[in-house]
Amino acid sequence: MTDTNTNMRLKLPITCFILEIILIILFGVLVEYDKETDAKKWHHSNHSEYDNDFYYRYPSFQDVHVMIFIGFGFLMTFLQRYGFSSVGFNFLIAALALQWATLMQGFFHGMQGGKIHVGVESMINADFCTGSVLISFGAVLGKTSPVQLLVMAVFEVTLFAVNEFILLSLLGTRDAGGSMTIHTFGAYFGLMVARVLYRPELDKSKHKNSSVYHSDMFAMIGTLYLWMFWPSFNSAITAHGDDQHRTALNTYYSLAACTLSTYAMSALTADDGKLDMVHIQNAALAGGVAAGTAGEMMLTPFGSMIVGFLAGIISVLGYKYLSPILESKLKIQDTCGVHNLHGMPGVMGAIVGAVTASLATKEIYGDGLKDVFPMVAPDGRSASSQGGIQAISLAVTLGMALVGGLLVGFIMKLPIYGAPSDASCFEDSIYWEVSSKKLLETSKLCICPQSSY
Amino acid sequence: MTDTNTNMRLKLPITCFILEIILIILFGVLVEYDKETDAKKWHHSNHSEYDNDFYYRYPSFQDVHVMIFIGFGFLMTFLQRYGFSSVGFNFLIAALALQWATLMQGFFHGMQGGKIHVGVESMINADFCTGSVLISFGAVLGKTSPVQLLVMAVFEVTLFAVNEFILLSLLGTRDAGGSMTIHTFGAYFGLMVARVLYRPELDKSKHKNSSVYHSDMFAMIGTLYLWMFWPSFNSAITAHGDDQHRTALNTYYSLAACTLSTYAMSALTADDGKLDMVHIQNAALAGGVAAGTAGEMMLTPFGSMIVGFLAGIISVLGYKYLSPILESKLKIQDTCGVHNLHGMPGVMGAIVGAVTASLATKEIYGDGLKDVFPMVAPDGRSASSQGGIQAISLAVTLGMALVGGLLVGFIMKLPIYGAPSDASCFEDSIYWEVSSKKLLETSKLCICPQSSY
Amino acid sequence: MTDTNTNMRLKLPITCFILEIILIILFGVLVEYDKETDAKKWHHSNHSEYDNDFYYRYPSFQDVHVMIFIGFGFLMTFLQRYGFSSVGFNFLIAALALQWATLMQGFFHGMQGGKIHVGVESMINADFCTGSVLISFGAVLGKTSPVQLLVMAVFEVTLFAVNEFILLSLLGTRDAGGSMTIHTFGAYFGLMVARVLYRPELDKSKHKNSSVYHSDMFAMIGTLYLWMFWPSFNSAITAHGDDQHRTALNTYYSLAACTLSTYAMSALTADDGKLDMVHIQNAALAGGVAAGTAGEMMLTPFGSMIVGFLAGIISVLGYKYLSPILESKLKIQDTCGVHNLHGMPGVMGAIVGAVTASLATKEIYGDGLKDVFPMVAPDGRSASSQGGIQAISLAVTLGMALVGGLLVGFIMKLPIYGAPSDASCFEDSIYWEVSSKKLLETSKLCICPQSSY
Repeated sequence: MTDTNTNMRLKLPITCFILEIILIILFGVLVEYDKETDAKKWHHSNHSEYDNDFYYRYPSFQDVHVMIFIGFGFLMTFLQRYGFSSVGFNFLIAALALQWATLMQGFFHGMQGGKIHVGVESMINADFCTGSVLISFGAVLGKTSPVQLLVMAVFEVTLFAVNEFILLSLLGTRDAGGSMTIHTFGAYFGLMVARVLYRPELDKSKHKNSSVYHSDMFAMIGTLYLWMFWPSFNSAITAHGDDQHRTALNTYYSLAACTLSTYAMSALTADDGKLDMVHIQNAALAGGVAAGTAGEMMLTPFGSMIVGFLAGIISVLGYKYLSPILESKLKIQDTCGVHNLHGMPGVMGAIVGAVTASLATKEIYGDGLKDVFPMVAPDGRSASSQGGIQAISLAVTLGMALVGGLLVGFIMKLPIYGAPSDASCFEDSIYWEVSSKKLLETSKLCICPQSSY
Repeated sequence: MTDTNTNMRLKLPITCFILEIILIILFGVLVEYDKETDAKKWHHSNHSEYDNDFYYRYPSFQDVHVMIFIGFGFLMTFLQRYGFSSVGFNFLIAALALQWATLMQGFFHGMQGGKIHVGVESMINADFCTGSVLISFGAVLGKTSPVQLLVMAVFEVTLFAVNEFILLSLLGTRDAGGSMTIHTFGAYFGLMVARVLYRPELDKSKHKNSSVYHSDMFAMIGTLYLWMFWPSFNSAITAHGDDQHRTALNTYYSLAACTLSTYAMSALTADDGKLDMVHIQNAALAGGVAAGTAGEMMLTPFGSMIVGFLAGIISVLGYKYLSPILESKLKIQDTCGVHNLHGMPGVMGAIVGAVTASLATKEIYGDGLKDVFPMVAPDGRSASSQGGIQAISLAVTLGMALVGGLLVGFIMKLPIYGAPSDASCFEDSIYWEVSSKKLLETSKLCICPQSSY
Repeated sequence: MTDTNTNMRLKLPITCFILEIILIILFGVLVEYDKETDAKKWHHSNHSEYDNDFYYRYPSFQDVHVMIFIGFGFLMTFLQRYGFSSVGFNFLIAALALQWATLMQGFFHGMQGGKIHVGVESMINADFCTGSVLISFGAVLGKTSPVQLLVMAVFEVTLFAVNEFILLSLLGTRDAGGSMTIHTFGAYFGLMVARVLYRPELDKSKHKNSSVYHSDMFAMIGTLYLWMFWPSFNSAITAHGDDQHRTALNTYYSLAACTLSTYAMSALTADDGKLDMVHIQNAALAGGVAAGTAGEMMLTPFGSMIVGFLAGIISVLGYKYLSPILESKLKIQDTCGVHNLHGMPGVMGAIVGAVTASLATKEIYGDGLKDVFPMVAPDGRSASSQGGIQAISLAVTLGMALVGGLLVGFIMKLPIYGAPSDASCFEDSIYWEVSSKKLLETSKLCICPQSSY
């Protein structure tokens, strides 16, 4: 099953070593501890050890970290013969992306004295950027070599950082949970890459582009970790205090409502009324995406539930009816259906955020207004301006994602990465040592008259 | 394998949509942010952002959340062909229950200005109530339709909230980890429901009411998350400071001792001395249940270990000898053996709590007495009164659970929910899309002469 | 498959009951709550409830706890027919070890008024000691009875506590993440035990000393939890404030770089360039081990990345080339390859720590110097002395581990524990109830002409 050109014996080491050595050199030149992590700087000021930002951000960081490595990694193990690659390539890309993102985001967030400062906040932001890359991975899952993915990560992280800078620093947009910067960007970038990498004969691998019983069980591990920790994700970099607290709570309610509507729609759209694991694994998470932007706002629990409720419906309808159309009409082979979980709900989240922002008033937010909308003030920007800028930001993000995905897609299309053939997609044994005994080919099991062993 | 009447195409969507829409409306009318989550209220007072209760309760909340969705969900995946339903219905019921519990508990905890206030404390309390429903689910696991479970959840959450109100608010009982309010209540409620829903021909599904190798591995994920995070569970809503700290530590020691006695009893009660996964998965957790009430008290590490040690013994004896008797004599078909993990250890926990409370003195607790026993004071209630009230509370809980379970059981017995037939229990393909290729029927695998593929 | 002498029906209960009862008695006599957990002591002082150490250590504790039970437990489930024992014996040993370690470490850390005081710090330290035992378990995985493991744990915990006391209290060595006390000690102790318990005919079980597809997937759960939470592990007992923050960050970067070099080396050392799951599961973690000692120092992100990068290379080379030599030449049958993940990287971590310590200056650390190096001061010890002492500590640790492993190995060699025969190693059904239908013998599945069921 191995083409010589999928042999990773030189391609992968060369790529990994070059990237890591460049990263090490750049870190050596550019990166320093920030004032919360540097022994001298921290002890120079007069404060309690308990005031270190570690205690107020690290628990959220760990939840985000688990979402990146376990959540995304295992959610994608639904593919029956691609589990090693799903978890393993997720692991590899994320390890690279978080380092490169530290540099890219550090550069754009503003270097001090020519240095990038790192601490738990930069760790969270790097994981956020990584999430976006993993979303794009989901669109092309099963159809690339690991080297292609590393190349995609390098470019995508850069574009993510540029888009994030434009939105958050230049436009003063608010997007705490990344409905735009992470989900919309990652989804449409990935979909465009998938379009460029369209495989006309992917049907040859069709029988492997599905789950088996226990791979669905592994995927549920991923689903549940994403679902449970999304409140931490959306609140991880909001302002301390009520902001973090409210964001976590809004997200929690959005997801709960989303789960109910997902189960309802999954049964409703099936002729025999049976639940589809694909919906439960994915669409039940749409509420987290859709609450990303507005999560830190005074969305109210009621508002959050409506958002989640609608997100679940949209997502299931996408999985059921839209994805097949995207494939047949637009030639977008979206393995994980990222358009239904991150794309449409991301856009929805942006819209919800724009509307909620435009309705912000001092009456509602009191003195908490500046924490959520630093730019909105009597002598500053009006709430409706903020809402308008939120909407413009969605357009900017879509543009960056689609154009970026197009360009990077063509870079990834170069026949130099050891990509699998159309007949060898969704197959671990191309890139992983999987002895013949090891791989459980459930589709070839049979009923034999005698049933003992 | 599909009866028309198990077709969920209308039943499930209708139930989910109606419930969620009602919840959304009620939240819109009744629910507000509390003073820790509301931007205006929080910023109105003069305090540090770091004083927000988010930082002192949210990490515990996340641990509880993981126990609810991963712990309970995966523990019940031991059933070889019911993994989708175990994890999936657990997910659905919990998403509903936590929303409904927010309203029910909010109503009983005291509305302010006609509003229910939400924050991380209400989130924890809602997850606690949800835990009780999932315990009852364990008793009827494999034998119900998802609609029955949603109906059960609606009623059980209400009864839970009433019982919790009687115990905590009216009687002034202490039950931080819910040995009574959660475990005793959930177990006996579920057992009574199981009794009402007794299936005389359940033997037709007997071959599916067991585990296979990898389903036992999935279940161990659930077991270990429950075990590890139980200290957070028991301490999640105790008073800040030493109370949370002590409760976590007591629970940790109780579980460690319980594990040792569980392994001992499991080998001892087997003719061939082999360990039984059922015991390891379940009985090893009994120490957490039994330390629920007394966990916040000055139980001492030594006392905690004795509690856990005994709980493990009782639990294994229950699994080995009592459950078969409950089934044959009392017609209680308790799928998960909740009587052995939540029922008896819950009662034990209540008794331990009553005894420990009656021994509370100012000498032992110093000025910390009022944190643990607000009602006990020289001019208030005596410690032995508190002990007596603790014991009465156990009786109240048992009464509520048994009567409530009886009534709700009959509501669930109505033939309108699409319940499976006796021959179709413990079977995912009734309610889930599980293609024939997907389901690994290990019992039908064979040894064939040629062994290559 | 059951020899009468592997029958655990009396051996295991007797061992567990005796150990647990002794522990309970000793706890009753010796153990008290510390000032953070005792109601009276805590309330005697005048401080905010939010100052309780619970809030500043417990989240790290929970991450460490997950590493012990899920991380180690599931990492070892790669063995195709030993999953129950891997997770289950890990669970049992850990539950014993953390209790015994509490006493041993409490004794050596200094009793106050003849009492050992417990709180979250002692809980973390006990889990650290337990980690060392589990590392040794990895070396002998599949080849012992549970009783042997409990005996090993009792002795190893004692020796660990002695070594830790010599290093940290007598020599004033710094080893926050235990590169020496935990990893070097645990690995070389375990390797020596494995040497003493050498099985000349282990080839009879060779076919079971490997993974299958889904067991590798379970193992990845373990790998990822260890990887993600290692920052918490290394920072769990460092000084509050910048120290914890910096240690977590250094570890995070070390692991990211390690992952890249691991993937590179895994492909490079394979003729067909295919990634080996053994490397990904284990070697990708070496960066955490190697950053254990120096993690709290001003290692810099750049320095951390170099450390991790090299650790990954060394680890893969070990798995690929050194382990077979250790087995054939030195008769060390190291099931999990702990020498490659904990042994060599542990030594590396000690060396890195020694070098980094010797370079410590007031210019670099400012007033934070005393937090990291309490002994280093103008009128105290010099930095190069500290570095020298760090190096000496490595030698002390190796000595303790090798001599201790030799002695304990011979104690474990006594034919009284019900150990499996050479042909019955790596086999769950010796000690666990695993019905014939349950065990999925993938190696005996076949391709049958008709493929429907």
